[in-house]
Amino acid sequence: MFTGLNLKLATELLDAIRFFNQKGWSPATSTNYSVRSENKNEYIISRSGVDKSKFELSDLILINPKGEVLPPFNKPGIKSSAETEIHTALYEQFPDVNCVLHTHSVLGTVLSHTMVKEKQIVFEGFEILKGLDGNPTHELTEVLPIVPNSQDMKDILRDMKGRYDKNVHGFLIAGHGLYTWGKDIASAKRHIETYEFLFDCYHTMRRF
Amino acid sequence: MFTGLNLKLATELLDAIRFFNQKGWSPATSTNYSVRSENKNEYIISRSGVDKSKFELSDLILINPKGEVLPPFNKPGIKSSAETEIHTALYEQFPDVNCVLHTHSVLGTVLSHTMVKEKQIVFEGFEILKGLDGNPTHELTEVLPIVPNSQDMKDILRDMKGRYDKNVHGFLIAGHGLYTWGKDIASAKRHIETYEFLFDCYHTMRRF
Amino acid sequence: MFTGLNLKLATELLDAIRFFNQKGWSPATSTNYSVRSENKNEYIISRSGVDKSKFELSDLILINPKGEVLPPFNKPGIKSSAETEIHTALYEQFPDVNCVLHTHSVLGTVLSHTMVKEKQIVFEGFEILKGLDGNPTHELTEVLPIVPNSQDMKDILRDMKGRYDKNVHGFLIAGHGLYTWGKDIASAKRHIETYEFLFDCYHTMRRF
Amino acid sequence: MFTGLNLKLATELLDAIRFFNQKGWSPATSTNYSVRSENKNEYIISRSGVDKSKFELSDLILINPKGEVLPPFNKPGIKSSAETEIHTALYEQFPDVNCVLHTHSVLGTVLSHTMVKEKQIVFEGFEILKGLDGNPTHELTEVLPIVPNSQDMKDILRDMKGRYDKNVHGFLIAGHGLYTWGKDIASAKRHIETYEFLFDCYHTMRRF
Repeated sequence: MFTGLNLKLATELLDAIRFFNQKGWSPATSTNYSVRSENKNEYIISRSGVDKSKFELSDLILINPKGEVLPPFNKPGIKSSAETEIHTALYEQFPDVNCVLHTHSVLGTVLSHTMVKEKQIVFEGFEILKGLDGNPTHELTEVLPIVPNSQDMKDILRDMKGRYDKNVHGFLIAGHGLYTWGKDIASAKRHIETYEFLFDCYHTMRRF
Repeated sequence: MFTGLNLKLATELLDAIRFFNQKGWSPATSTNYSVRSENKNEYIISRSGVDKSKFELSDLILINPKGEVLPPFNKPGIKSSAETEIHTALYEQFPDVNCVLHTHSVLGTVLSHTMVKEKQIVFEGFEILKGLDGNPTHELTEVLPIVPNSQDMKDILRDMKGRYDKNVHGFLIAGHGLYTWGKDIASAKRHIETYEFLFDCYHTMRRF
Repeated sequence: MFTGLNLKLATELLDAIRFFNQKGWSPATSTNYSVRSENKNEYIISRSGVDKSKFELSDLILINPKGEVLPPFNKPGIKSSAETEIHTALYEQFPDVNCVLHTHSVLGTVLSHTMVKEKQIVFEGFEILKGLDGNPTHELTEVLPIVPNSQDMKDILRDMKGRYDKNVHGFLIAGHGLYTWGKDIASAKRHIETYEFLFDCYHTMRRF
Repeated sequence: MFTGLNLKLATELLDAIRFFNQKGWSPATSTNYSVRSENKNEYIISRSGVDKSKFELSDLILINPKGEVLPPFNKPGIKSSAETEIHTALYEQFPDVNCVLHTHSVLGTVLSHTMVKEKQIVFEGFEILKGLDGNPTHELTEVLPIVPNSQDMKDILRDMKGRYDKNVHGFLIAGHGLYTWGKDIASAKRHIETYEFLFDCYHTMRRF
């Protein structure tokens, strides 16, 4: 009984949410995840405040481009995350994006916290870069922007303005974590895995 | 057949115990966990000496504010941990606290061991700080007290005296691990996850 | 219904693929795996582009020594990895090799990336070296060649030419990962575990 | 159908073996484990060469104090590990010991490899030391001997001679791993967990 939810999309999103939690990338009810529904102006999104190790299909809700919770999900106590605004802004900006994912790993947190003044991390020479859509080779330079953290999502969206180009597949919020997206859930999940792997490589190499 | 135990609370506490063990935060029969029962003067607590990877509902017992095991659990060989005194003291001090959790991770052990002379760890600027009850933003300073280890719980409680204020959500015992609490099991579990994540961030940043 | 696939071999290969994924050694659809079929000139191989956390028996296909997908697997959208050429070259070179495995771990990536100019890693004195076929003792010197990464497999095969001897059980591609092989799946899996363990030892010791 | 095997002991030993494998402490068919049977002169032991991620009850066999495989287990291809001699020597030396466990972790391997000249590791001040039988407090000095590795078990046993006292709960073989024991499986398993935790603390503190 998920009136208004595409069960195939919801189930695939739930699988990804559980996978990320297993990896330790969504501690303490942090993170949020969405997928564009078959109605292009509606998004299935994780509701706020849920322990991701206990996340269920019934914790997914439907919102519109303004971030408003749609019936029958608009019940007392059910709300979308404060960060919903980032999801809806990305869907508006990129018509071909159908999934937006946000993880909160130790390495994503620490790298973005310590490198926020450099405004970006640059990755080069790793085969795994081919995991990002459109990258045919490891012989390229991939830029991941970093923006300062803020409790006001408008600050974050303003700081990202003008920083998207065809090679940008995500961004880091300092001390907070990773946003990435893709043409479908599989593609966005692959981007999360690619970046978390790159964070680990980067961190491991600095210790060498 | 759990006469005297609230099955809903006991099951939720068991889930949290298994989650922490999966993370490696309760090695070698260490750690203990409790929840205030619906009778405010009785606490469900993990019994002493059990391998947490094999912990079962039947390993939960009921105690009173003096730490005495209540019928029908007061059988030969069944005892509450030596650290029960910390749990009962916290419940007495904080009427709104309904769950007390204690983990024993490598990072909690090492950070508290190496920093015991500084008497505290200070965390700032991490989004995950919002995981601690009452924190509306990451722009704050969170103090986690550290007290010396002792086999006499009265020493530990004395050293914590006067160090609780509204911003204190837990404390570390040097070389021993973390105590934290919350208004319910979900809240206290979120505090454990938040602190263990912060320990990992802190440790990772010192290696940078 | 796996016409053309030996179910016993396919199931054992699938088990190994899932084991490696559980360890985090196959992120973001990377890696590929094969086993020589009971027909010595046919190889069961993982098809390209599949999320290894969701890998199923039906994601295994049959190829010939030219790397061509055999019926009934030669359907639209089904292709073997670009790296198939490495597998077929190894089977051709070593008639006793019946399994070729390729993992893509953080440590394999970083070690090969940082040490590519040294052209090899040398391991000595570890008991685990006995995990490599034919090693009766830990008192030996094991050389693992490293070759530069390339999107053209012919480059990689050329760089490995003349570097195989009876003591070589695998090689690293810089920034890309490990190839190893064995007389059967169990033997090749043991080689993967041995090398990944050695990478971890090597890395841990450099931090000391 | 485990003629000659005490099913309760065998099952508990199997659980411990699987637990250690899950932790990554038994890669590449390494490690071995035993428990004294209800007949004090027979020991249930893991047979040699089995992938511990696939270990089954049927991979446990019965031996006598000479290390000979007893009927009905004495079949072609079934052999006890070369290290069986260490197990039988420990059972002979300590009549109260009923379980001997050997893990092969990265940290046990690296610490013993790098510290073999110091002949021991000393642990002090950690609460987890109470996990070792007979330790009533963390305020003590625990010595873990290290002996050089050898393919001849007699060398290892000779090097340990005179180094056992009431405070010794195990030893390390350089570049090879940990042996520990206990009055029962639960106690020996707790010792493994305690030492592996201490290795991690020790290693983490050296990086500080």
